[in-house]
Amino acid sequence: MLTLTFLGTSSGVPTRQRNVTSLAVQTVAGHDWFLVDVGEGTQHQLQHTRLSLHELAAICITHVHGDHCYGLPGLLASAGMAGRKKPLKLIAPLPVWDWLDATRACTDLHLPFEVTHVDIASGATPLWDAAGVRIGAHALSHRVPSHALSVDVETRRIKLDADALRAAGLPAGPLWKALQEGQDVSFEGRMLRSADFATQQAQQVRAVIGGDNADVSLLAEACHGAQVLVHEATYTQAVLDKAGPGPMHSSAKQVAAFAQAVAVPNLVLTHFSARYHNAEGLMELETEARSQYSGGLWLANDFDVFELDADGVLNKKQGKAEQKK
Amino acid sequence: MLTLTFLGTSSGVPTRQRNVTSLAVQTVAGHDWFLVDVGEGTQHQLQHTRLSLHELAAICITHVHGDHCYGLPGLLASAGMAGRKKPLKLIAPLPVWDWLDATRACTDLHLPFEVTHVDIASGATPLWDAAGVRIGAHALSHRVPSHALSVDVETRRIKLDADALRAAGLPAGPLWKALQEGQDVSFEGRMLRSADFATQQAQQVRAVIGGDNADVSLLAEACHGAQVLVHEATYTQAVLDKAGPGPMHSSAKQVAAFAQAVAVPNLVLTHFSARYHNAEGLMELETEARSQYSGGLWLANDFDVFELDADGVLNKKQGKAEQKK
Repeated sequence: MLTLTFLGTSSGVPTRQRNVTSLAVQTVAGHDWFLVDVGEGTQHQLQHTRLSLHELAAICITHVHGDHCYGLPGLLASAGMAGRKKPLKLIAPLPVWDWLDATRACTDLHLPFEVTHVDIASGATPLWDAAGVRIGAHALSHRVPSHALSVDVETRRIKLDADALRAAGLPAGPLWKALQEGQDVSFEGRMLRSADFATQQAQQVRAVIGGDNADVSLLAEACHGAQVLVHEATYTQAVLDKAGPGPMHSSAKQVAAFAQAVAVPNLVLTHFSARYHNAEGLMELETEARSQYSGGLWLANDFDVFELDADGVLNKKQGKAEQKK
Repeated sequence: MLTLTFLGTSSGVPTRQRNVTSLAVQTVAGHDWFLVDVGEGTQHQLQHTRLSLHELAAICITHVHGDHCYGLPGLLASAGMAGRKKPLKLIAPLPVWDWLDATRACTDLHLPFEVTHVDIASGATPLWDAAGVRIGAHALSHRVPSHALSVDVETRRIKLDADALRAAGLPAGPLWKALQEGQDVSFEGRMLRSADFATQQAQQVRAVIGGDNADVSLLAEACHGAQVLVHEATYTQAVLDKAGPGPMHSSAKQVAAFAQAVAVPNLVLTHFSARYHNAEGLMELETEARSQYSGGLWLANDFDVFELDADGVLNKKQGKAEQKK
C-alpha cells in the first residue's frame, strides 16, 4: 500500500490556502516514509499531521527551484533539535547538496545525524531499494534539470487455496490461519502441509510523481504499469499559451490528454498557479482536464490524503490528514 | 511613531502557536518598513498582515542561526515573483550574505531587484539613516556573533504658541492652521508672521531589539533613552541553570532585572522555548519577570502589534495584526 499526503500544492509562491510543493509518501513496509520536495514551511505543515521527522527515511527533491527545496535546512535543523540520530538519504540534484553544504558552513548548522547524498541525475536504477520499496528517477523538461520519481511498492501475501482445504474436509478456522502462517497442522490423524495449500503472491503497485515539467510525454515509459500519476498542472492551456514556453510548465489539458493516451487509471493534479485561488479557478482546471480524461481525476489540496491499496485501487481518504491531538 | 508587529516568537523550532523569529518595524516616515530577522515561514506570516513586500526597505538579521534567517531566500524569491523592482538593503552578518550568494548560485534564484549588503558587524554608526529613521547595531554575546538593533525615529512637529495667538486676538480656526503650515496671514489689518508664533519641535523615540544573547547587560548603553526593550527570554532562570551556559540564552529573570536597573519603561519578552507552549508555561515566565520589573511588561505572541507613539508611550493594540481581506 502507498499513502500520499499532500503538504503543499501551490506553484512558485505560498498562498493563504496552499503551501509550496511537498508530498509525503508512506508505505506499509514499516513506519518509514519519504518526502518528495520540501518547499519552505514543510516542517510547519507536518506539524498538522501525524508524520514524525524521526521516521523520515529519505527526502527526494525533484529540482533546485526554491519552492521545492527552501524548507530543507529548517526541517533538518528541527529534526536535529528533536534528537534525531538516524541517518537520512537526500535524493536530489547535486546543486541542492552543494547548497546544503553551504548552509551548514554559513549558518552554524550542525546536524546530529548523517545525511548522505544520492544524485537524482545519476541514472542509477533504482535510486532506492529497501523493504519492498523501489524509487526510480525519470528525467523531465524544465528550466533546470528536473525529475519525476516512480515509487514501486511490493506487497507479499500468502494466499490459501480455500477450495482444496474444503475438499480436504478442513473447516475454516484457526487451522487455516496456521497453514497461512507456514505451519503444518495435524487434522483428523492426517498431516496437512502448509506448502500444499498456501502460495505466496507478490502484488506490486506504482505511483509516478512528477517534478516541474513542460513535456509530460517524457513519462510514457515510467507510467507503464502505474496506477496513479501525480503531476503539475500549473495553469490551463489558454494561460500557458499566453505565458509562452518560457516558464516550462504543463497545462491541465496536456497532462490529462497524456494520462488518457497511456491509460493510467488515476491522475492527481497539483502545483497550481496562485491565480487559481478560488473554487471557480479550480473548476476551470478540472473541467479542462475532464474534457481529456475519463479515469479517476483529482485536484489536490493541502492535507489531502490518497491511499493506493495493494490491488492498485486509489481512494481519497475522507477529510484531511489526521491532525495531531 | 514606531509600530512593532511580531511575526514569530518561538525559539529554535516553530510550534503550532508560534513561528520562529521575525519582527516587522514600521515608522510613520512613509510606508517603508523593516524586518528584524526572517525565520522560515516569515513570508507565510506576512500574508496574514497588511504589510507589503513592495514597501519593505531593509531586512536586518541579528545572527546566522537558521531560526532567524532561513525564511530569507523564499521571501526574496516571492518579492521577485510579485514584481518588486525597488532595491533592498540586507543588514546582516557577512556569512548570511555569503549564504544568499550560495543560494542564488545553487538554486537558480534570479532576483529582479538589487540587494545590497550592510555588514551588521562593521561598527558603522548608524547602519541606516534615512527619512528620520536611524538603525544602529550593538554587539551581544551568543554562540555566534549576534547583534541587537536600536531604532531611533525622529518626529518633527510644528507647535503653535496658543497663548500668544490668543493675546494677539486671533481666534482658533483656519488662520491658526495657515500659521502652523508656515504661511504669514493678514488679520484685522495686521500681518501675523508664522515665525513669530510657530516653533519646530523634534521628538525622538528609541526601541532596542535584541538578537539571541546571554548577557543583557551589554545593552546598558543602547537602552539609554530607549522607551522599549524587546529581548529574548528563552526560559526561566531555573531552566537556564539546568541547561547550563552552553546555549547562551537569557532567562526572563535576567532580562527583567536588567530592564529595572536601567529603568527602561517598557519590556517586551519574546523567543520562548517550545516548552512554554501553554498559558501555564507563559505565566511562569511572566511571574518571574514581574518579580524583577515594575515597568510595562508584555510577553509577545505572534501577530501582536505594539505602537510607540511620538511621546514615547507604548501601547499594545487591541487584537492581532489586522488581517488582509
